[in-house]
Amino acid sequence: MSWIRATYRVWASAEEVAAVARQIAVEQTVEVPDALIDETIEAEFVADVTAVHRTPEGNASDVVLDYRSELACGHLNQLINLVFGNVSLRSDTRLIDLELPADVLSQFPGPNYGVAGLRELLTAHDRPLLATALKPRGRSNAEFAAMAGEFAAAGGDLVKDDHNLVDRDLASFRDRVVRCQEAVTNANERSGNRALYIPHLMARADQLDAAAAIVQDAGVRGVMVAPYLLGLDWVRAFAVRSGLLILAHPTFTGSLFAGSRHGIQKSLALGTLLRLAGVDVSVFTNHGGRFQFTRAECLDLAERLRAPLGSLAPAWPSPAGGMTLDRMGDLVRDYGNDSVMLIGGALLTHGTSIYDATRAFRAVLDR
Amino acid sequence: MSWIRATYRVWASAEEVAAVARQIAVEQTVEVPDALIDETIEAEFVADVTAVHRTPEGNASDVVLDYRSELACGHLNQLINLVFGNVSLRSDTRLIDLELPADVLSQFPGPNYGVAGLRELLTAHDRPLLATALKPRGRSNAEFAAMAGEFAAAGGDLVKDDHNLVDRDLASFRDRVVRCQEAVTNANERSGNRALYIPHLMARADQLDAAAAIVQDAGVRGVMVAPYLLGLDWVRAFAVRSGLLILAHPTFTGSLFAGSRHGIQKSLALGTLLRLAGVDVSVFTNHGGRFQFTRAECLDLAERLRAPLGSLAPAWPSPAGGMTLDRMGDLVRDYGNDSVMLIGGALLTHGTSIYDATRAFRAVLDR
Repeated sequence: MSWIRATYRVWASAEEVAAVARQIAVEQTVEVPDALIDETIEAEFVADVTAVHRTPEGNASDVVLDYRSELACGHLNQLINLVFGNVSLRSDTRLIDLELPADVLSQFPGPNYGVAGLRELLTAHDRPLLATALKPRGRSNAEFAAMAGEFAAAGGDLVKDDHNLVDRDLASFRDRVVRCQEAVTNANERSGNRALYIPHLMARADQLDAAAAIVQDAGVRGVMVAPYLLGLDWVRAFAVRSGLLILAHPTFTGSLFAGSRHGIQKSLALGTLLRLAGVDVSVFTNHGGRFQFTRAECLDLAERLRAPLGSLAPAWPSPAGGMTLDRMGDLVRDYGNDSVMLIGGALLTHGTSIYDATRAFRAVLDR
Repeated sequence: MSWIRATYRVWASAEEVAAVARQIAVEQTVEVPDALIDETIEAEFVADVTAVHRTPEGNASDVVLDYRSELACGHLNQLINLVFGNVSLRSDTRLIDLELPADVLSQFPGPNYGVAGLRELLTAHDRPLLATALKPRGRSNAEFAAMAGEFAAAGGDLVKDDHNLVDRDLASFRDRVVRCQEAVTNANERSGNRALYIPHLMARADQLDAAAAIVQDAGVRGVMVAPYLLGLDWVRAFAVRSGLLILAHPTFTGSLFAGSRHGIQKSLALGTLLRLAGVDVSVFTNHGGRFQFTRAECLDLAERLRAPLGSLAPAWPSPAGGMTLDRMGDLVRDYGNDSVMLIGGALLTHGTSIYDATRAFRAVLDR
């Protein structure tokens, strides 16, 4: 017998919290009044309340529940349904930790590349990686290809589509993918670099496979996806069948962690769960940029992405949003070598060319 | 030229709000510093700030943005990415309204059945519908089939799997589906009722098509799905290709609307967006039950599900959670005839049998 351990922070009085803990244990497993729970169902299905700890602040408690592992059915749709399905609808209740046993973890192959695999692909062994996004929407595919080529020639590592580069039809998607991949391949050949072009795999659900075929036909090695729009288990299955490098964009995820008294920790939403989905690089909004996240929660996320998790490869944290050259030194000290610095607007506005800007950022990362 | 109109409530001072409105307009479309936005990109891509109204409370403003319709690319993944992608990560910003023009709406066929179609299927022309859930997990499939048969024989309308009935393998899913469908068919034949069995379509992403084939081979007419786990556009595409009745469960959706100062309105998350995804029946946690939602927001959701929306059929609101017999009269007055009363635990604990309990609830709905 093995257990999935979920910890919920519950804002309730010390008197009420035991009852709330039991309510969650029942709600997430059998969802019936206690009168209908016989001894077999209690023993085999209802989660166990393992601990209730009052938090130091004194206005909340951390409720630790153990769920029988087989209730997760070996896939992410049901794992999330189990630990954060109906409870997502409870006020003053937040999923703050999730511990998965070996037999659950072994059902998830995890990132195809992870930290070591991507370093090998790029032959970048001992420095943070440099990434950028092709933007703004409205430029031609030829212009994007030229930008991608410049970035690759100057020593950039990952050049991805901006997440708003979404096409009305597959023909225009193919056009961008083929042009950008060719530009990066050519720049790599001339410069000796090994940069990767990462298109945004985003289409109608019934055209995603056709879009993926375009990507693979073009010789692309990795894609960006929006896991919480496409479905986390769709991403997991896609990572397995494609073998591609998977970069995750945080679009649409904010309400999962933006509140303080509901939702789930950012480090779970963009960390642990994405690693289970096979994500190699998790892009997130950095502290001190355009969005309001604290340094502590960003570092907690980076830690989760790289911490031991069964035999799953560590994944790359990729801070983004308001990443300027003068912050690079501090950010590298914060996030360490195994991180992908995603520079968007600052690369396009720094100096006279993307080439020069890329060289300037690479110089900081090489130090 | 047509426009998608999104309204965001922004908690910012009256002095700051114009700048925030512009930030959102740029963030959601081209995501670059203003210096990189030339006149063509401004005209063709950046959203227009159409209005900024101070709310009566005075601590927030409603910011109305118009996006060019073609930026949504005719699918839900990108529509959501456009109006609630990165902005989901902003504190103190909530999507409170969404108006879609005719050319966008015409790209979405909407519910396969809707209110009129389901009434015809059930031959239930002028009363609210009665639904229940098979629970608790832990009962055998034979027991679930017997419960489904009793409910159908007594005049129930929709009997669905509880959302925690998820199977480790497709064989056990098939076993439940075949047994329950057979029990309902037999009960209908004996009683003259037209009840429907609605299994929960939930499996690994790479097995969803096989699970759907099981459902359709068994002669089932509708399924329950978890749209925000499987992906809204996956549901849209599945509704189109299957032609089935689609009932949506709100699992995992709470953090979208549980906060008051971020996320999106419940009526959009479980109303408008689900109708675009082809959902016929939207289950939601009712006010006064186990979850904390107000009567006003529940009625707002019910209204959205049935209000005119291009040529899309109206969908059914299905309040659930803490639905007891003594509340039925009030709830019917609140939600009106075109609603599905989903009675879970109360049906199992009321009186001596599911048959009698179903009769009792139907008697209230028939009045």
